[in-house]
Amino acid sequence: MKDVVIGIDIGGTYTKYGIVDREGKCLDEDFISTGTYQDFDAYIENLNSEIENTYQAIADDLVLKGIGIGAPNGNYYKGTIENAPNLNWKGIIPFVDKFKNYYKDIPVVLTNDANAAALGEMIYGGAKEMKDFVVITLGTGLGSGIIVNGELVYGYSGFAGELGHVNVKLRGRDCGCGRKGCLETYASATGIKRTAFRLMADRTVDSELRKVSYADLSAKMITEAARKGDPIALEAFEHTGKILGSKLADIVAHTSPEAIFLLGGLSQAREFIIEPTKKWLNENLFPIFRNKVKVLLSSLQDKNVAVLGAAALAWKEANTI
Amino acid sequence: MKDVVIGIDIGGTYTKYGIVDREGKCLDEDFISTGTYQDFDAYIENLNSEIENTYQAIADDLVLKGIGIGAPNGNYYKGTIENAPNLNWKGIIPFVDKFKNYYKDIPVVLTNDANAAALGEMIYGGAKEMKDFVVITLGTGLGSGIIVNGELVYGYSGFAGELGHVNVKLRGRDCGCGRKGCLETYASATGIKRTAFRLMADRTVDSELRKVSYADLSAKMITEAARKGDPIALEAFEHTGKILGSKLADIVAHTSPEAIFLLGGLSQAREFIIEPTKKWLNENLFPIFRNKVKVLLSSLQDKNVAVLGAAALAWKEANTI
Repeated sequence: MKDVVIGIDIGGTYTKYGIVDREGKCLDEDFISTGTYQDFDAYIENLNSEIENTYQAIADDLVLKGIGIGAPNGNYYKGTIENAPNLNWKGIIPFVDKFKNYYKDIPVVLTNDANAAALGEMIYGGAKEMKDFVVITLGTGLGSGIIVNGELVYGYSGFAGELGHVNVKLRGRDCGCGRKGCLETYASATGIKRTAFRLMADRTVDSELRKVSYADLSAKMITEAARKGDPIALEAFEHTGKILGSKLADIVAHTSPEAIFLLGGLSQAREFIIEPTKKWLNENLFPIFRNKVKVLLSSLQDKNVAVLGAAALAWKEANTI
Repeated sequence: MKDVVIGIDIGGTYTKYGIVDREGKCLDEDFISTGTYQDFDAYIENLNSEIENTYQAIADDLVLKGIGIGAPNGNYYKGTIENAPNLNWKGIIPFVDKFKNYYKDIPVVLTNDANAAALGEMIYGGAKEMKDFVVITLGTGLGSGIIVNGELVYGYSGFAGELGHVNVKLRGRDCGCGRKGCLETYASATGIKRTAFRLMADRTVDSELRKVSYADLSAKMITEAARKGDPIALEAFEHTGKILGSKLADIVAHTSPEAIFLLGGLSQAREFIIEPTKKWLNENLFPIFRNKVKVLLSSLQDKNVAVLGAAALAWKEANTI
């Protein structure tokens, strides 16, 4: 018999899930659509039946120890998804309460996706030996999970770790949250695209990006252009790393992590994002921290980190690691 | 028999100590000079003999359970005081190792003074029921202690919680740390004095502060002027609270505290500093945190909070609370 958990990653488009063992091996995985369900009850019923199908096919030797869920705006304390802008279901969704109807006897826990990624990094990834670190996910937005003394920081509200919405510039770029100048409007896959467009307006240098519309441009295209030495792409990375590194200096002053891991779409640019981030972080650090904080790529970058993170949450809750 | 600890608060001018019971009652207290000792060994020998005198006078019914020390640039992990700008002893001072020569059988622990204040607030003060909060000391500089999940945040380096040195303005005011624009150059007893001087230069309004030299001006005088409606003093408080509140929004986004406690000289201005800080904090908060974080005066403000905080550290270490 083998102990396993189910890790579920809820995104705006897809919900992915996997059956994960103690060592982080994914025995089977699959996904359902998230975006096509307007009705939450229909969604959760289908999610459960699909998971059941996947699980029963290999269940013979398995003992299910728990279920972990990573979701945007997930609240660990309440097991809710609260006002997630990229999901169809508005308001406060009592995800865990509903899901527990199907799984009465095992722990079902939920947290936000970046927190789950941080647990994944700690249990399966590059932070195995660390007790204090930060994970930054650079996707459509910027998410973060903060680990202090081996534990996720949830805070009083359950929403600690909202680094995407610290202010960078008082009258800066419009943010989806309704405010201006939030960090994620600069440092994310979307942020670097906005920066590239700003630079095309400000500079006269030639660039292959000038042939691409805003709708078509992706962080991946900017990365490819940077690899070929495109000046707009290179400056966009420098600028993005400058803003990200400068603001990460604050989380270092607050919690003094051993390392900061970058994850998500934009992190696939590797040295193009790591190097300027590291440089501007150190430039802005109080001397006692300078050159002492590692800036690393997530070691789970090429794996299904979101599902592994959700599985790590389940293992942590089952208290069996 | 009564269990007690000794709390020691090391400042640049004086070292205060007290014999403190479990309820935070100070049975006796005294102080020695810090600043007159160029030689650390002579200082620590004298400190120990003075403490012995004080303790022996009332020792009959007491059992000494531990010693806690709050010191500038104190490192909890190593028991050292490291490069403290306001102390005579340069470099890394192995305080705990030296002090343990006198107290071999009981725990001797050291942390920085603002961390000690945070423990004092948690064990004896207004944060008794809280697990997530921040203490900000507004004195000559700005110190901070961050509590997450009922534990002090020390971080990987042991120096977490350096809020005084997060950047407010890239090419801002010169800071004692060698950089520019650190938060404490604006938000501290010294910071508000610098702001008042800047405002006297910028504005033409009359002010009683115009009669006072920079050397003579104190935060207390600015508070008294504000109480009388002095426009420069009032604007100085508004500006100080604006910068402090705006930056505190970052620590809320990071750790989501239930409350932020203000302590130290400038906090004695009470509503003059609390109100603008609260206003600008909420102005800058991500909506899910807005109007949910209390901004409070430390309830230990009128007591010897530094000695009580050091005592709280000792109790925490003795694990007997």
